[in-house]
Amino acid sequence: MSGLFVTFEGLDRSGKTTQARMLAEALGERALLVREPGGTELGERLRELLKDERVAIEPPVEALLFAAARGQLAAEVIRPALANGRVVVCDRFLDSSLAYQGAARGLGIEAVEAINDFALDGLRPDLTFLLEIDPAAAAQRDGTSDRFEAAGSDFQQAVAAAYRALAERFPERYVRLDATLPVTELHGLIYARVRAALAAGAGSRREALA
Amino acid sequence: MSGLFVTFEGLDRSGKTTQARMLAEALGERALLVREPGGTELGERLRELLKDERVAIEPPVEALLFAAARGQLAAEVIRPALANGRVVVCDRFLDSSLAYQGAARGLGIEAVEAINDFALDGLRPDLTFLLEIDPAAAAQRDGTSDRFEAAGSDFQQAVAAAYRALAERFPERYVRLDATLPVTELHGLIYARVRAALAAGAGSRREALA
Repeated sequence: MSGLFVTFEGLDRSGKTTQARMLAEALGERALLVREPGGTELGERLRELLKDERVAIEPPVEALLFAAARGQLAAEVIRPALANGRVVVCDRFLDSSLAYQGAARGLGIEAVEAINDFALDGLRPDLTFLLEIDPAAAAQRDGTSDRFEAAGSDFQQAVAAAYRALAERFPERYVRLDATLPVTELHGLIYARVRAALAAGAGSRREALA
Repeated sequence: MSGLFVTFEGLDRSGKTTQARMLAEALGERALLVREPGGTELGERLRELLKDERVAIEPPVEALLFAAARGQLAAEVIRPALANGRVVVCDRFLDSSLAYQGAARGLGIEAVEAINDFALDGLRPDLTFLLEIDPAAAAQRDGTSDRFEAAGSDFQQAVAAAYRALAERFPERYVRLDATLPVTELHGLIYARVRAALAAGAGSRREALA
């Protein structure tokens, strides 16, 4: 596997999606931008299901569906692209489930990691950019704050704390960034880090980033 | 929980669906007949997805989807019905995933059981009727044998062997039956066993069946 697997994590409105898109554009044809749940026929169909408020879904069942979408994405898209030397840029990945479902919803980080690994077979990002922002600040980022009454709540704080814990647990791949920095400055930091990882080469990639 | 949870297992064309329906009809209003994957809005939508040949689904991903449908069925339908004293009759349940995906497809029985228990939270049948039939005989049961070229193959033999192993592992709930017996005779055996379990009462149910 000679490619590079880059993920973006953080709260909603932390700027992940914007930065993932800017990174993919800067990398050009070598990049493959994917979103989850989605990125495959199965994933897109599951995304519709997960968003459909008429469909009752228990919290552990929701976690299984995210794991299923992710497993299909890994097998069908991410692994083949990495094998072809591409830079896969993913807007959310496994760590989102660990933070949201495992920690904040109380399903247990290890249990959620286990159901994910059933389909992921050990696939992990090479680089994870965590865009950190205060939950209350994220809630005020645009005018539709009524949709985000829960921001700044215990739930959002729990997600933010879980991300910090993951960053401490996996320092070799996590890069913590202040999401309140100007968009172009953040992009510059991210792009430089990815170029350094690519320059370090596929074989010695992990060591070079450590 | 004062109801009774009855499942039917076996190869396709072993007569499970017929016997499940006959049992539910004989029990009248007290019975609730469910099928899986299905029985809930989520489950029916996942059933469509699983049957759609245009949607690529990796084997472990398929197992996660079955576990998700089953978990939702357990939480939304089975547990509430059992709490209301009903007899829940299920055409396939957890053991189907253990036999087909865990054993025959090689994903591992323990691993498949673990992802299921993530959403089932320990729910198990009180009685499981295993309709045993030689895979080759099952394949000849109706005229569309071309759909079942694989019957009698190593895969079907592996499923049958996995079911036998499950029956030996859980003798307190498994009842093995010769699926080639006349339909009404099989129904008589099944109905008598269920009535005995109900007569033994909810509290002492497991002991009475052991």
